[in-house]
Formats: sequence, structure tokens, C-alpha cells
Amino acid sequence: MSDETVGSWVGLDAAGVTGGLQFQQVTPKAWDEDDVDVKIMYCGICASDYGVLKGEYAPLEPRVGGHEIVGEVVRVGPKVANLKVGDMVGVGWQCDACRECDLCKNKDDQYCAGITWTLGLKYGRGAAKGTMSHGGFAKMWRGASRYAVKLPASLDPGNAAPLLCAGVTVYSPMKTYGAGTTRKRVGVIGIGGLGHAAVLIAKAMGAQVTAISRGEAKKADALALGATTYISTGKDLKEDFKGHENSLDLIICTINPDVLPVADYLSLLAPKGLIVVVGIVLTPLAVPTIPLIIGGRGVVGSNIGSPEDIADLFALAAEKDIKLWVQRWNMDDINKAMVDFGDGKPNYRYVLVNTDNGGKM
Amino acid sequence: MSDETVGSWVGLDAAGVTGGLQFQQVTPKAWDEDDVDVKIMYCGICASDYGVLKGEYAPLEPRVGGHEIVGEVVRVGPKVANLKVGDMVGVGWQCDACRECDLCKNKDDQYCAGITWTLGLKYGRGAAKGTMSHGGFAKMWRGASRYAVKLPASLDPGNAAPLLCAGVTVYSPMKTYGAGTTRKRVGVIGIGGLGHAAVLIAKAMGAQVTAISRGEAKKADALALGATTYISTGKDLKEDFKGHENSLDLIICTINPDVLPVADYLSLLAPKGLIVVVGIVLTPLAVPTIPLIIGGRGVVGSNIGSPEDIADLFALAAEKDIKLWVQRWNMDDINKAMVDFGDGKPNYRYVLVNTDNGGKM
Repeated sequence: MSDETVGSWVGLDAAGVTGGLQFQQVTPKAWDEDDVDVKIMYCGICASDYGVLKGEYAPLEPRVGGHEIVGEVVRVGPKVANLKVGDMVGVGWQCDACRECDLCKNKDDQYCAGITWTLGLKYGRGAAKGTMSHGGFAKMWRGASRYAVKLPASLDPGNAAPLLCAGVTVYSPMKTYGAGTTRKRVGVIGIGGLGHAAVLIAKAMGAQVTAISRGEAKKADALALGATTYISTGKDLKEDFKGHENSLDLIICTINPDVLPVADYLSLLAPKGLIVVVGIVLTPLAVPTIPLIIGGRGVVGSNIGSPEDIADLFALAAEKDIKLWVQRWNMDDINKAMVDFGDGKPNYRYVLVNTDNGGKM
Repeated sequence: MSDETVGSWVGLDAAGVTGGLQFQQVTPKAWDEDDVDVKIMYCGICASDYGVLKGEYAPLEPRVGGHEIVGEVVRVGPKVANLKVGDMVGVGWQCDACRECDLCKNKDDQYCAGITWTLGLKYGRGAAKGTMSHGGFAKMWRGASRYAVKLPASLDPGNAAPLLCAGVTVYSPMKTYGAGTTRKRVGVIGIGGLGHAAVLIAKAMGAQVTAISRGEAKKADALALGATTYISTGKDLKEDFKGHENSLDLIICTINPDVLPVADYLSLLAPKGLIVVVGIVLTPLAVPTIPLIIGGRGVVGSNIGSPEDIADLFALAAEKDIKLWVQRWNMDDINKAMVDFGDGKPNYRYVLVNTDNGGKM
């Protein structure tokens, strides 16, 4: 790490996801007085990194992926109050917001119209205004201390990295909508990076968990993760869901098919139940109004989580000893890891390790 | 009123809504020890009475409509604890539930699978099990004291009648979803029986109210009711909503067209905003996922309200002096009133008055 530039794995074109990330020196964001520098020890790989680097969401330009960043604070600005040098912190999908609107003031920063994503968006304020943010496939991260959340000492930082995106994306709506408290019976659609985290976290929140996934392939894993019921889906959801109608209070939908047959999934919801969509489905959902009205049910969306959600999740993970299913790769092997990731091999999350920064394999 | 039968306006066939309700003696439900008899003084007319009596929801059979009932308790069973003879009470759409399930125990009786509607459904429990309930177009109502809610002394009982259905149907979701507190800016789609109540109640809850209705016809009324903004809709909602995007926290949709262009209405919602549908729309709503996810928005349904919701609404109406816009008809003129109702003449609610029972015109 240099004062001026940061060694980073850069996606220059679509080949970035097929083994073509280039290790280059990148200029970090311009320093603000409430910034911290974080020596990156771990960074998870998420499907949205893959999508960004493949150019699925926006035209391709050189980008540094990675938004499940864990490392050690090595420098703090004079206006940083929440962190000190030596702290272990995590950074997720959000690295800034306007910090002035009602949403920011209410700790709903993740819904601020002036959000800056950790990769792929330009800063809207501060010294770096107008320049692009850079993610965690790198040796160092620099950004606002508000979005770097301290890890409890008892958490294994390498295992905790995917809590920053996969974890908090499912945790935030489960917290908001009372998983384990007002809504005891939680369903999780899809057992992958987000879904496996949802099962583990819902169980830790005291919920009774039903996993819903295609075929029988994920059944053993789902039960091992803590689900008590597994619903195998095939071609006919109405048939698959027989006997499970009205059995769930909250469903977290982690899949993003082109079309989601939401009416069938609604049949699983008990009165006052909610389906939360956290992954984009391109075709609008065809939501019948009768089950909504008669049962007070709903379909809602949720996007990542606030820094407070991340802190709450870290505390829960420490208290309940949540262990994500993670495979570690040396970050030097990122190009191999990305190819395997694209082939669907994670079971269920890859974490890249900077051993030279003190990360442990 | 006789001990054995109750004078009631009975719909025998579809002519019931075109002037053909017949005044007949009807046997009340079999008496349970927690029942009360209520001398009916007032009863509102609701679109759903009209629909039931027209045979829109179920095959026609002789029915007594009316589910916005207000009157005086004249008899209490030995197991009645909440009411005494002489109390003024109101009864809405629900007259019974299983009273044993978790929903009932949590005071969410309106979502109980064993619900008995005040008209048109058979009792699932008690002495009257298997027999049909009868509504308030009659001289007397008999039913469980749990579903007869005491009126505050300061409420005009004739004006309060429509709170029992029109009022609580919009109040319950506004209470649940924080109108005036966590969600300050409330939109009301449709200014009719429910919509005019929603504007009045939302304002009383401290919300800033936007009324949304077709054309300019309802504008003056909406502003007089307390709306601060009026959005006139025409053929192009995208055009109509320009400048109003992201401006509302909660929208109560009281209309029930065959198709509701919900994506356009979603554009009115600020982050964390919800659209609540209280009227059935036959075509499934086409809900785009991106505004849901990016803004944590949602589409939910809501059905009437619990007895506690009614009690809370009564207290609010008394405290804030909510006055619905009501035209009174002598119940003897019910057949004329039903015809005018069908012609869309209420501005915005009709209440029938049994002057012989002490109701005041």
C-alpha cells in the first residue's frame, strides 16, 4: 500500500469475470476528514460484483469490485468519532449518502436518493465528489467512517465478511418485519449466498425456518443450516405447496428469475404475512388483491441495510455464533475464484483473503 | 321488536337494490350467554351491502343487509362483561370469529379463518352455528358482545355509524402503518364513502393529505375535507403525477377498477412508502420490483378492522371531532335510499334512521 495508490484487481472489460481482472495501482478517493483507511484482509464475492464487472447493470468502465470488505483501520481522520486505529471493521454495499435528508437522519441511509454504492457510483459529496468509488478487491479501502462498522472481537472476521451484503440484505427486512417475534414462521426462497445466510440468521432470530428451493439438491444443506421444513419445487408450485398453505408469516425471496409466480408463493402466507423481495425480478409481479385484502398480506421490497442494521447483525452473529458457509481463496487467486463463482460452485460464499495484510486462510 | 322475531328489510332477489326490499319478521340468531340485543337506531349503507343484495359476491338468498349499525343495548347475557343495558354501541362487518386461534388471541379477529360476517355468512360457533347472520337494516341486532363496541358519549351516534365500516377500513391500515407518525404524508385514491372518511381520519391522525381522484369534480370537497393537495387524474397517470413523484409515505387505495395501474401509483411513494389496497381489484396488480427494492416500498392489503381498531377510531373521532359527510334517511324509506345509492348520489354516505327506536334525523 502506498500513500498515493492502492493495489487493486481491476475489471477493464467483460473478461474481468472470466479470469481477466488486472492487478493495477488505483488512486483512492480524495481524503475527507471523517474518512478512515482500512487495510483489507477479507472480501466476499457476491453475484452483484459479478454482474457489475460483466456490465449487466451499467456500461462497462474500469471498476474495482468487492463490497463485503473486512479489515483493520490504519488511519482515521480528525473528524472520526466512532473508530480508532486498530479496530476491525466491515464495509458493505454503501459507502456514502447525502447524510442530510430525513432518511439519513432516521438511519435509513440505504434509501437515500444520494447514495453512493461501494462500487460503480460516483460520490455525491465531499472531497471525492464526482469521482468513482472503488470496492474491496484491493489492498486498501478508504471511505467515510459512518459506513465502516466495527466488528465484535469474538467474530471470525473472515467468516463475517459476507454478513456485509448477503447477510444484512436478508437480515434488515427480517428485523424490520419481526422475524422470530411478531412473525415466527419464516420461509426462504432460494438456498444460495443470500438464502443460506437467511436460514442461519432467521434461526438465530428465533424463527422456525422453511427452506424453499428447486428440486432436492439443497435439501440436506438446508436442514443442516437449520431449516425445519424443506419444500422442493418443480414445475407445478400449486402441487408443491399443497399442505403448506397459510403456514408462513414472512417469506424472504432471494431468487431473481425473469418471472416470479408470486400468487403461488402468496398461498404460503398466513394472514398478516409478507413476502419480501430482495432480488430484482424483471417481469412485474402479478399480485392478486384478494389474498392481500382478506389476509392483510403484502409484497414488499428491501435493499441492503443501514450501518445500524450491520452493527445489529454483527452483534447477533457474535451472540448466536452464526457461521456462514464460506470457502476462502487467496486474493491473489481472484481470477480463478471468479471463474468458479460464475460456474455456481460456491457453497455458499467465497471470501478472498489478503494474507499479506494479515488475513487468515 | 318481539322476543321471537325482528322487523327487518329483507332482500329476496336482485330487486332488493332497485326498490324491492321487503319488510318482514325475521328470527334472530339463537341466543348465546355472551350476546347482547341492540335496539337499532342507525345503520349506514355501504357499497358492499349493495353488492351482497345484488348477488355480486354469492348466490342470492334472503338476506338482511347493513353493517354500520349503531344502537342501544337493551339486553345483555350473563357472560357479557364489557357492556350493560343502556350503552350505545356500534357493530361493523364482523359479528363473530373462532375466538381461539392466535389471530383472535392477538386481537386480529378480522383475519380469523372462522370469521362470521355481519351479513351473508353462517355462524361457525355458538348456539347459532350453521345459521345465517343478519345485518342492520332492521329494528334489532343480536350478537356477541365482543363485536359490539361502545361509543363515547360525545360522538353523535348517527354520524358515527359509517365509522363502523367505511371508517375503520381505512383507519386500521393507517394505524398499522403509522399515518401521521412514521408516515406523515398520506395519499387517498378515490373520494367516495371510504375515501372521504380516509381524508378526514388521516388529517385527524396528524397526516398531510393528498387526495387523488378522477377529474376535478371532487376537488372542492377534498380540500374542504382537509386535503392540502389534490391530484386530478385523467387518461395519462404519468403526466398527471409529474411533480408529485416520491411525495407520499402511505397511499390508501379505496377504488376498485378492473385494472389498477399500480406502477404509476408507486411512483408517488417516497422510500419506505406503502400502498394499501382495501378494495378488490379483479386483475392482479402488475408490481415492478425495482421501485420496491430500491425504495423499500410495498403493496399490502387490509380488511376492515378489529373491535379494538373500532374503539380506537371512536376515541379519535371524539377527540378530534371527526364529522363524516352523511345524509340521513328514515329507514322506512330504505327502498328510495337504495335506489339513490345505486345512482351514486351519496355525498358521501347514507345513514338510515329508525326514528321509532329513538334515532334522530
